[in-house]
Amino acid sequence: MSAIEEGQDVLLYLDSKRTYLVRIVRDKDFHTHKGFLSMNEILGRKIGDSIKSSTGVRFFLLRPEVRDYALKSSRRTQVMYQKDMAQILLLSGICSGYRVVEAGTGSASLTMILAYYVKPAGKVYSYDIRREMLETARNNLSRSGLLPYVELREKDVAEGIDEENVDAVILDLATPWLVVSHAKDVLKPSSSFVSFSPNIEQVVKTVEELEKHQFVDIRTTENIIRRYRVKRNMTRPESLMIGHTGYLVSARKTGESTA
Amino acid sequence: MSAIEEGQDVLLYLDSKRTYLVRIVRDKDFHTHKGFLSMNEILGRKIGDSIKSSTGVRFFLLRPEVRDYALKSSRRTQVMYQKDMAQILLLSGICSGYRVVEAGTGSASLTMILAYYVKPAGKVYSYDIRREMLETARNNLSRSGLLPYVELREKDVAEGIDEENVDAVILDLATPWLVVSHAKDVLKPSSSFVSFSPNIEQVVKTVEELEKHQFVDIRTTENIIRRYRVKRNMTRPESLMIGHTGYLVSARKTGESTA
Amino acid sequence: MSAIEEGQDVLLYLDSKRTYLVRIVRDKDFHTHKGFLSMNEILGRKIGDSIKSSTGVRFFLLRPEVRDYALKSSRRTQVMYQKDMAQILLLSGICSGYRVVEAGTGSASLTMILAYYVKPAGKVYSYDIRREMLETARNNLSRSGLLPYVELREKDVAEGIDEENVDAVILDLATPWLVVSHAKDVLKPSSSFVSFSPNIEQVVKTVEELEKHQFVDIRTTENIIRRYRVKRNMTRPESLMIGHTGYLVSARKTGESTA
Amino acid sequence: MSAIEEGQDVLLYLDSKRTYLVRIVRDKDFHTHKGFLSMNEILGRKIGDSIKSSTGVRFFLLRPEVRDYALKSSRRTQVMYQKDMAQILLLSGICSGYRVVEAGTGSASLTMILAYYVKPAGKVYSYDIRREMLETARNNLSRSGLLPYVELREKDVAEGIDEENVDAVILDLATPWLVVSHAKDVLKPSSSFVSFSPNIEQVVKTVEELEKHQFVDIRTTENIIRRYRVKRNMTRPESLMIGHTGYLVSARKTGESTA
Repeated sequence: MSAIEEGQDVLLYLDSKRTYLVRIVRDKDFHTHKGFLSMNEILGRKIGDSIKSSTGVRFFLLRPEVRDYALKSSRRTQVMYQKDMAQILLLSGICSGYRVVEAGTGSASLTMILAYYVKPAGKVYSYDIRREMLETARNNLSRSGLLPYVELREKDVAEGIDEENVDAVILDLATPWLVVSHAKDVLKPSSSFVSFSPNIEQVVKTVEELEKHQFVDIRTTENIIRRYRVKRNMTRPESLMIGHTGYLVSARKTGESTA
Repeated sequence: MSAIEEGQDVLLYLDSKRTYLVRIVRDKDFHTHKGFLSMNEILGRKIGDSIKSSTGVRFFLLRPEVRDYALKSSRRTQVMYQKDMAQILLLSGICSGYRVVEAGTGSASLTMILAYYVKPAGKVYSYDIRREMLETARNNLSRSGLLPYVELREKDVAEGIDEENVDAVILDLATPWLVVSHAKDVLKPSSSFVSFSPNIEQVVKTVEELEKHQFVDIRTTENIIRRYRVKRNMTRPESLMIGHTGYLVSARKTGESTA
Repeated sequence: MSAIEEGQDVLLYLDSKRTYLVRIVRDKDFHTHKGFLSMNEILGRKIGDSIKSSTGVRFFLLRPEVRDYALKSSRRTQVMYQKDMAQILLLSGICSGYRVVEAGTGSASLTMILAYYVKPAGKVYSYDIRREMLETARNNLSRSGLLPYVELREKDVAEGIDEENVDAVILDLATPWLVVSHAKDVLKPSSSFVSFSPNIEQVVKTVEELEKHQFVDIRTTENIIRRYRVKRNMTRPESLMIGHTGYLVSARKTGESTA
Repeated sequence: MSAIEEGQDVLLYLDSKRTYLVRIVRDKDFHTHKGFLSMNEILGRKIGDSIKSSTGVRFFLLRPEVRDYALKSSRRTQVMYQKDMAQILLLSGICSGYRVVEAGTGSASLTMILAYYVKPAGKVYSYDIRREMLETARNNLSRSGLLPYVELREKDVAEGIDEENVDAVILDLATPWLVVSHAKDVLKPSSSFVSFSPNIEQVVKTVEELEKHQFVDIRTTENIIRRYRVKRNMTRPESLMIGHTGYLVSARKTGESTA
């Protein structure tokens, strides 16, 4: 376990709700509401160690996981959204070596997770029509070191997908039903389509389009996470929770033509 | 897309609730309550095609995903349990190349998922004290083709872990709190411990032990899946659902010694 | 506390999942899969006592509550449906003395609960177009002793409500949106409309109609009950649960005319 | 429908999340962040009408329901807590004429609901050891007009219950298990005990004590409310929800003595 070096990313951990993803630069300080941390003090420490801020508060030096990068990349409260990303992985079977089409890119939170799992040999082709989002996405991917496994495409995926014979199509956009026929064209037989939508009407339209295009194993699920406060004699679920992020629609392509 | 060959596994898909994982053998029939399927007819077809049973019912020929193998390996109703496996993946950051300790092996449902994600360079070290379970596990892993990425250990993990410097420790056993100190010994700094337990008292004991051993980012979550029936003008959650499988406790190791 | 008499209803309690609602008749036996119970032995006992069946299994003699009558009246699994009835009560403020319109009557499970709470001075006007359901309802209400507080109406409530100046309109039927304008006509100002629907599309149509008719405080809720197995060191939610019964839409009438 | 009079309570309704419970006093104004409302303008209007504030925003004049009084009486966010009150009603069968023991009184939110359902002939005996809470409770009950149906007792209910032969015992306090034996003493046979507790350890202790005292039909439930945003093509559960208020333990008394 070697020492922390300049340019390395560290996750400063104060508590479960307060963490900071910082790049270590010599002679700089990092300011928090619990005092500042001297980066020179961090250099040479090891991952897993703790240091104290100028006000004596202890921070742990953790190695950022891909979920930390995903969380910090997003403008939205993404903590719970990770639950959906996890299901997408298992529903689609995405793993090392897969070639995956994703749309829209957004801030690249999900792109990052997908890239992390298809590396080193696989690739994520991520579509978005918003040029400024693609710039943000590129920066976030670059910071997390996952850009080499991603190709960003400035294109409306509803107009067609450029890749062929892909292993999965993953959608998080407003009108997923417009992409179903293109997914049918480019997916390998038996491979998976997964779409995330906040509204139930989006789900109904997407399922109808999947049925029309002879997809099978069509499933709609909602994934709900309850967090617990665990403390002897005071154990209970958290009072406030995320009640909804969205629905997941998944399906597998068959070779049958549209009726 | 080449033709289906002898010895290949195929997932026969009737509907979302009825699928059959079969190995294709020449001159054999596969019997279902919807008539039998001739394997000779399947040979030469392509994945994604459909064939009809002797009673005229259509079955699709799908490529089994790792989740299909996991589901079919278990004696328990594992359909919903996959939701927990997915969260374990993302909480622990397990990916291609990771070295993971798992206990207990059971029928190897989770082992399979872990192996699928650490392949090709990683390895899962899976502990169980029940010799007959390990035999079942070996068969299930062999069938799914994932055995090369797994080492099965007939040993009580509460007595110690043989590996060093591992990337994750994943537990699904009755007394996870007895394994916390061993996990602390063998985990890389900042790496993850995740434990699955059905009962809340197991959670309380495990969290207390993690706190005692200076783990941080300790989180207890419960993951609930709702399935929907989606049909225009008749859309609603399924009436019956899995209400509980278990709680997940996750944490990251720090370098701090036990107080 | 006087003795149990002939003609009295008793709830025979074996365990939380097995109870029997029986009317005590001299010289009869009641047969269960745990042996039979002699009704002569029950006569003269007190509520709260227990007796043993012919095979030595203990049954408690409980006083049936209105929820027991409601549960036993229904052809459907109504155990969880009670959760919705409870919310309807509090949302509508239904209490002793209220005049309530209900449709459809069905087997009168909800009618019974409503009658129980409006008695002695109030009244439930319950509409159904199915004559045979009304007969079943009348029998169930009669058995529970609540028939005096109910008037059954064989009429399609979508064609109009006969009562005026009512305190609440409660609906459990396929097309609640067709009843909204009638509810507007007959409800006292500020009084409540509550509708129960299994499908989300029913909810959308009903809410739109309520908005059109200037109802306010329109709320859509879903009420989910988790049951727990409580036993030291083995405490957990039940594995199987009722995932969905239906949505509740509630609203209060204003005096404003339709735009 | 007569006109609104001086001294009458009115619920000023702006939207589902913003309502104001005010007593109408001649020549006064009521100030909101949407401008002020002249009470003289309200006098003479009818319930269900709307008036405009000084800034032209429309408020509806509703009749306060008991749930509005309960909500406004509490210092806590009680909106979701009503779901638990509703279940307590149905679990206990509390209705017009019942004599109910409750502890602790707190700000009397639950007391109010209980009083509303036992009136006119029943009575709620409500215990609290905190004199200042009892003062608050008395004021809240008085405002809602329900004080005549309540007797407040400044006493620790764990030391004994003064009433006899009661129809229900309802608890919302830190140590409900200490009250079980007293509940056994004073409840009519077959009558209900219901306890609300936020923490699971409280539930375990209470259930054990109920079993020890031969209560039957012991049930532990948790009641979860999801609220929906309903709008065509944008229908979805609310993003933020109340994840937990507490568990309900209910049971019925038998005549059996403690083993």
